[in-house]
Amino acid sequence: MPVTLPAVSLALSGERFVAVYRLAGDPAEAQRKALDICLEQTVELPLALVPAGDIRDHIVGRVESLESAEAGYCRARISFAVETAGSELTQLLNVAFGNTSFKSGIRLERLDLPEGLLRAFPGPRFGREGLRSLLDAPRRPLLGAALKPMGLPPSGLAQLAYQFALGSIDLIKDDHGLANQPLAAYRERAQRCAEAVARANRQTGLNCLYAPNISAPADQVLDRALWARQVGAGALLITPGLTGFDVMRQVAADDRVALPIVSHPAFQGSFVAHPDQGISHYTLFGQFNRLAGADVSLVINYGGRFASTLQDCLAWAAGTAAPMGHLKSIFPAPAGSISLDRMPEMLRVYGNDALFLMVGDLYQQGPDLTENCRRWRRLVGRIAAAEA
Amino acid sequence: MPVTLPAVSLALSGERFVAVYRLAGDPAEAQRKALDICLEQTVELPLALVPAGDIRDHIVGRVESLESAEAGYCRARISFAVETAGSELTQLLNVAFGNTSFKSGIRLERLDLPEGLLRAFPGPRFGREGLRSLLDAPRRPLLGAALKPMGLPPSGLAQLAYQFALGSIDLIKDDHGLANQPLAAYRERAQRCAEAVARANRQTGLNCLYAPNISAPADQVLDRALWARQVGAGALLITPGLTGFDVMRQVAADDRVALPIVSHPAFQGSFVAHPDQGISHYTLFGQFNRLAGADVSLVINYGGRFASTLQDCLAWAAGTAAPMGHLKSIFPAPAGSISLDRMPEMLRVYGNDALFLMVGDLYQQGPDLTENCRRWRRLVGRIAAAEA
Repeated sequence: MPVTLPAVSLALSGERFVAVYRLAGDPAEAQRKALDICLEQTVELPLALVPAGDIRDHIVGRVESLESAEAGYCRARISFAVETAGSELTQLLNVAFGNTSFKSGIRLERLDLPEGLLRAFPGPRFGREGLRSLLDAPRRPLLGAALKPMGLPPSGLAQLAYQFALGSIDLIKDDHGLANQPLAAYRERAQRCAEAVARANRQTGLNCLYAPNISAPADQVLDRALWARQVGAGALLITPGLTGFDVMRQVAADDRVALPIVSHPAFQGSFVAHPDQGISHYTLFGQFNRLAGADVSLVINYGGRFASTLQDCLAWAAGTAAPMGHLKSIFPAPAGSISLDRMPEMLRVYGNDALFLMVGDLYQQGPDLTENCRRWRRLVGRIAAAEA
Repeated sequence: MPVTLPAVSLALSGERFVAVYRLAGDPAEAQRKALDICLEQTVELPLALVPAGDIRDHIVGRVESLESAEAGYCRARISFAVETAGSELTQLLNVAFGNTSFKSGIRLERLDLPEGLLRAFPGPRFGREGLRSLLDAPRRPLLGAALKPMGLPPSGLAQLAYQFALGSIDLIKDDHGLANQPLAAYRERAQRCAEAVARANRQTGLNCLYAPNISAPADQVLDRALWARQVGAGALLITPGLTGFDVMRQVAADDRVALPIVSHPAFQGSFVAHPDQGISHYTLFGQFNRLAGADVSLVINYGGRFASTLQDCLAWAAGTAAPMGHLKSIFPAPAGSISLDRMPEMLRVYGNDALFLMVGDLYQQGPDLTENCRRWRRLVGRIAAAEA
């Protein structure tokens, strides 16, 4: 006879959110996995030990549907009381995939969140519309570049930033490996690059945005964001895989900062490395980024030096725009092996609502970086005109 | 003719750290992957575009050795200038595995960090020795339990905490799903459970530690840690997969908090889900946790409801104690399917330097939770005596 845990009566709203999982196995195996998720992600006890009453009836997850999917897989919709997540992003991620990340053959595919839960998350401050408005670019594709390589001093990076901006690039980000190393310390780098871009903007009449990398120790991220604002940077770059998603959310929610945020996916590749496990590109890089306030989600592009497939990238981009209550849609920003040659294909795949990031090929096109950028801009304009 | 990037001369210390990768493929394929890591993790440009001089010679990673390993794999030791990481944990993780996490067939196996880099990280405040000293338990295995299920109110959780502590459990943690939900709000829960454990300690003369879960929004983690300290909690639980490793480091380094930290691996399972990809248990849960100041690394145990293997768990435990300069060794805390029946096996596998976490079987052994805990303690004592 086991310990008797008290049955309790809970004041629950009745609102539930849904997590959709793809489960490897036949329907019997999938049924077992789905029931296991219901317990593991909430009470973490065998059902026999869960006290009767509201905990058993409403806190334990509930299999809303289970159906066969692609060969060898099933798809389960599992609902959880919104009270299991409270109003914290950290705990929402935990309920959706915490311990289940250690089980095999389970992939989190999508979240369907009711307004009662979404209300806790302001989401992207700018989103697609806000960024287009800042750039006075109502419809066209956006063009971006990155400052690299690591090792250049702030003056050298600022010189590159100036040339990119003069070449009509829309957004220039720090390479995500530029942190606060002695090679190009954050404050000086951010200030010099912001000034260089401002100088170019005065010449071009455009509003190129410079995004310094604020991925940093937890107690310094907000300081770096405020410094960026102070020196006139137009955007921010952050890597939630390194800082935690919630650190990005905190920056996005801070009215003193109020800058568009580019989310970099570094260190998160293992979540999407195996089709049987992890989290879908749609949810990890689309839905989670939007819950955490990103305005741009950098996409690890297919066809180049990474393992991404076209299908991965399409799911990634779809997650940036799928309906999520009041949460704004955000820009996918394909990066990695983007070149002038590939632009017709890139525009076909991603459409106009994308921010294309290029560096290597801009360095390679000829000796004048500014002219190379302008050539890219003209090419994209010609492709768009031909299709209109 | 490409853009000419300036050659620069850098003031480098000459110190380098080493990351060891297991690469899928034959030696030719592994060589290609290793050279790719050298560029991807630093300059992120093709070698032809990297400026001559110190960037090419010292910033680009360097393959120190490449040898065949298990069938189908090679092992590469790649060194990076300590200046690529600066003194920030976020950037160290980035250099070790940032973009490479999106490449296939690459697993980060180990970091070898020189003292010049380790100096930036105080590491565990207590470690094995410190925790043993707090518990006045110089040699024996430690026993732990968790407060669950989610849905119980603070009074019910405190009652469980009291019974566990009276039963001579060493460490009682919140279930990692207890955050700040209305079901059992953090401040009240932490206070009531800390008081309950203090009351039991007065009766037993022991020093059972209660670890409330401070995994929370980024701007609230430190507040929760300070509240825990204020209400007399003896330890803390945090989930770096949700908050980011560096948030844990920040808490560990704060002298106002100064409590032992239990690190929970939820949400990090995808990093270890596939043998060809991700990060080894040794490095992710051993080395990274120690760099980030954890004193206990919760181990997802084998032989139960998770995908872990015995080998995974041994690697996990090895990483908690492997030499890392001044960084203290920490306790592995096997959890998941620990039962009285399995204790002989568990003690053989993990030895005495482990903190065993059990809940389900303590609930199942009989109606009196305190007596069940005492039975566990006696059993472990008998096994130890028989082996002495």
